[in-house]
Amino acid sequence: MAGAPIRIADADDPRIAAFRSIRERDLVGREGRFVAEGTVVLRMLAASHAADGRFRAESVLVLENRLAGIAGILDSLPADVPVHVADRAVFNTIAGFDMHRGVVAIGRREAAQAAGALIASLPSDSLVLAGCGISNHDNMGSLFRNAAAFGVDAILLDETCCDPLYRKAIRVSVGAVLSVPFTRGGSAQGMLEGLSGAGFEIWALSPRGEAAIGSIVPSERLALVAGTEGEGLPAAILSRFHTARVPQKPGLDSLNVATASGVALYQMALAKGRIG
Amino acid sequence: MAGAPIRIADADDPRIAAFRSIRERDLVGREGRFVAEGTVVLRMLAASHAADGRFRAESVLVLENRLAGIAGILDSLPADVPVHVADRAVFNTIAGFDMHRGVVAIGRREAAQAAGALIASLPSDSLVLAGCGISNHDNMGSLFRNAAAFGVDAILLDETCCDPLYRKAIRVSVGAVLSVPFTRGGSAQGMLEGLSGAGFEIWALSPRGEAAIGSIVPSERLALVAGTEGEGLPAAILSRFHTARVPQKPGLDSLNVATASGVALYQMALAKGRIG
Repeated sequence: MAGAPIRIADADDPRIAAFRSIRERDLVGREGRFVAEGTVVLRMLAASHAADGRFRAESVLVLENRLAGIAGILDSLPADVPVHVADRAVFNTIAGFDMHRGVVAIGRREAAQAAGALIASLPSDSLVLAGCGISNHDNMGSLFRNAAAFGVDAILLDETCCDPLYRKAIRVSVGAVLSVPFTRGGSAQGMLEGLSGAGFEIWALSPRGEAAIGSIVPSERLALVAGTEGEGLPAAILSRFHTARVPQKPGLDSLNVATASGVALYQMALAKGRIG
Repeated sequence: MAGAPIRIADADDPRIAAFRSIRERDLVGREGRFVAEGTVVLRMLAASHAADGRFRAESVLVLENRLAGIAGILDSLPADVPVHVADRAVFNTIAGFDMHRGVVAIGRREAAQAAGALIASLPSDSLVLAGCGISNHDNMGSLFRNAAAFGVDAILLDETCCDPLYRKAIRVSVGAVLSVPFTRGGSAQGMLEGLSGAGFEIWALSPRGEAAIGSIVPSERLALVAGTEGEGLPAAILSRFHTARVPQKPGLDSLNVATASGVALYQMALAKGRIG
């Protein structure tokens, strides 16, 4: 279990420097560190720490009246993870805003996996979500949340996607960023050719896709590709792979990418017998 | 068509007072006025103005370099709707922030319809979405966007829902708040009994619902009920009506209400033969 709580009485205490003004700056990219907010996300971080160690908790800051409620989660953390406790005034001064959740941790990603290694680690029966140019943190978080709900094995993101380890994306994902294995980097084309080479049947999601998403006969290895809202997926991808659409009323602005991919993953998970 | 553009050179010009600092304050509740941002939403507002008059455009403010691009929409507005034009500096000073969309209108809702009147106006074959306690503007906007995409005939909201005419909800809905007929008010129970009395078969959406959403045999009049995230729908509603779930991987936090209702409406629209 984590060590005995360390009482913080001064917002300038150097031991909690990493938590200062966490809304204004984002830790992503700084040695793989990220901010995990709220009880559910802390539980996911602790679970990853204990299970595969892809992510580790470095430090925790808790509002004093939340301590008892998360004792079980803190117990699951190693003893060398410091847990800091502060009253509401000090806590808000540290965070720089009224953080009503009252639970925040700094996490660290161990060495990021390469797409090739992640693909090689997947089981023969696999469902993968690939993202191209997903630049909005809300959408990124929602994609992970949907992927977790429908049992997706891995998420592959191209270099033009935003980092899912941004604070807001982690929060919107309700911690799924820390549970669904992912990689990020390289070109969309290279990423999809890698999947194709590993036997994945690839379906690019588009409002003008050929197949209705419910009509797809699922292959053992199945990948859904989601693009940006507005622009959509590049023509080179739409012409190279299968395309599918979520049927909707004609003449309207298409669904949000989070909802469209949610419906598509639901149908794919159903067709593969993963949910029911 | 709308009148000749009125050049605004001074952010304090009283003719554009309604547009001042529109991010900080919300017009909703002030005589049914609301803010419509962006080209797509302005097009929906103009369409409503021309068609059923449920909503009317009162005044438009456009960045000078956007004027030519929206000429067609402005042409569809009556001549007594003033169109104001400003350069980037004046426009941003008026709005109080860098509004890159460069197109904003003040709209007004004509007398709001009562739930009973809206229900009475629905065709014999109908698909309705009912919302209980939807308090988040993002979720509200997404519910409308999904409803429009899947051909929902009307949205009924209880008194604990937020107003869909909030600026952010309209924006997230991509204008669907102005196209899908809705009412808001009264208790959830009363609203659903009203639907039931009008022959609607009512399905309350819940992660622990009895029926998988894809197994529902659709009635001619079909209503989906969506509740808040976290709390979910009240026990009194879940015990009184049919319940349905979006199947997902066990043991996880449930889907976001926008995605869950998106999947459910997709399935219902498919079962009713409205999309395909």
